[in-house]
Amino acid sequence: MSMDSGDQHCDTSNGYVHLHNPHLKTMASDFLYHFNLGTATHDLPAMFGDVKFVVVGGSPTRMGKFARFIHQELGLPDSEEPRDLADTDRYGMFKAGPVLSVSHGMGMPSMSIMLNELLKLLYHARCSNVVMFRMGTSGGLGLEPGTVVISKAAVDACFRPRYTQIVLGKETSRPSELDQSLVDELLHVAGQEDGVTAVTGNTMCANGFYEEQGRLDGAFCDYTEDDKLQYLQRARDAGVRNIEMESLCFAALCKNAGVKAGVVCVTLVDRLRGDQVTTPHDTLKEWELRPQKLLARFIRSRLGIK
Amino acid sequence: MSMDSGDQHCDTSNGYVHLHNPHLKTMASDFLYHFNLGTATHDLPAMFGDVKFVVVGGSPTRMGKFARFIHQELGLPDSEEPRDLADTDRYGMFKAGPVLSVSHGMGMPSMSIMLNELLKLLYHARCSNVVMFRMGTSGGLGLEPGTVVISKAAVDACFRPRYTQIVLGKETSRPSELDQSLVDELLHVAGQEDGVTAVTGNTMCANGFYEEQGRLDGAFCDYTEDDKLQYLQRARDAGVRNIEMESLCFAALCKNAGVKAGVVCVTLVDRLRGDQVTTPHDTLKEWELRPQKLLARFIRSRLGIK
Repeated sequence: MSMDSGDQHCDTSNGYVHLHNPHLKTMASDFLYHFNLGTATHDLPAMFGDVKFVVVGGSPTRMGKFARFIHQELGLPDSEEPRDLADTDRYGMFKAGPVLSVSHGMGMPSMSIMLNELLKLLYHARCSNVVMFRMGTSGGLGLEPGTVVISKAAVDACFRPRYTQIVLGKETSRPSELDQSLVDELLHVAGQEDGVTAVTGNTMCANGFYEEQGRLDGAFCDYTEDDKLQYLQRARDAGVRNIEMESLCFAALCKNAGVKAGVVCVTLVDRLRGDQVTTPHDTLKEWELRPQKLLARFIRSRLGIK
Repeated sequence: MSMDSGDQHCDTSNGYVHLHNPHLKTMASDFLYHFNLGTATHDLPAMFGDVKFVVVGGSPTRMGKFARFIHQELGLPDSEEPRDLADTDRYGMFKAGPVLSVSHGMGMPSMSIMLNELLKLLYHARCSNVVMFRMGTSGGLGLEPGTVVISKAAVDACFRPRYTQIVLGKETSRPSELDQSLVDELLHVAGQEDGVTAVTGNTMCANGFYEEQGRLDGAFCDYTEDDKLQYLQRARDAGVRNIEMESLCFAALCKNAGVKAGVVCVTLVDRLRGDQVTTPHDTLKEWELRPQKLLARFIRSRLGIK
């Protein structure tokens, strides 16, 4: 299959995925190593060309369950039960009609590998007008645990809406604001979900779970509880409502590819009150379903189902 | 179970894991969230107290296979076949006699979560004189693919032997040199492995697979092939022999805990010659076993088996 699929793929106005990489056109084929899928071995347009919604989340098990949930919600036939399309144990990838559900592991580097290959996959498959979502869990700031946060922007650990990478030994940054019309649409849909509180706010993205999020209960800690609370309060004052570990890379790379993207995470703990997640397992499981239900409702609404 | 296990745990000279966190002593119990193991619910000294070797690597499947391989190599009874001890789909954890095999996912944030909880687990279990290894795959610099690199130091994308974290909004760094006596011992053991070439060198640790490692085949690329080759040559000149995504965090946190640590990775591609991994699957599988075989030989040698 030729990699040169024409200039229409480099024009954001037409709804295609916009890759900024002149080298791709010179490659005879492209092997997406961490999915074990490639343009020389798979007919990507036939497999993925009809994808309109992409939902990514941390664990492969959860993303498989989400795909089966969407499969039911959309009333798709039993014969099309989602199965794992990525022949690898790095990531899980499941398709339910126009919805692709993919795991990204934990942290931005893991998200970055997956997202580079996913964006190339959507490009090779000639997908158009795709909307992408990250859903997951997070620590909240001044919110009742179980609250769903719809992110206005992803920000770094210094509260800046930019994703900084070291490329060829030099720092480069990309903006990480999210699409505001999508935020409004998600908030509207969330309002129809009984018993779920949803708010909008900035989502802080850290490169670790313990020291990088100001926790006191990691293997190492050089600061006091006061230091921690001052930092978290500064984050809250800067508009941060929750903290997780992947949104910044997700927001910045989707934006750079001209793809509309949203981030929907439930909070499992109020970090202004504590560090450890002590809520009973069954309650946590119910909370984890909230972003899934919200996105299922969004997708049904967009498709005009129910 | 009391968390205050006495001052002897804070003295590196006695071989215990050294955590630098005064807050841990004030906690009634500690729940290792991402392993779903805790001091209140599990007898960690009984489960893990005899661990002397910890081997970590990316994928849970591979680490399960490694544990079963070690189980055979050490001639352990069939009744003790390793099973997954972490009740979660985040990480896999398998025990074969004195060897603990744990997956860390991809990238330093994922490694950091796992390692914080693993170091706390070893501390709570009162393990002593533990040696830790990361094994994995990497891109080589000027090495025949299939070569095994034993790391002298882990370095960042600017070739500095330090792991930089943002803690409470401020940059802090920790040194990431590795134990030189362990490097010598690993090199000696590698010399006994037929048909395997092993070298020592610095290992560069990047926060991504594509742009952060100077690849031309990601979704985005703003630089030329010449820019890329100049960067990789500068890395080679600075002593870098391979590139991966977890060693820096691993080296720095183990060092900070006073635990001897080694990094052993096989190279799958020579990055001075190309980006994509095009070696046949079966050859890659054989190469991936090389670090496993080397570490099995190291462990047998230390235990005086064969």
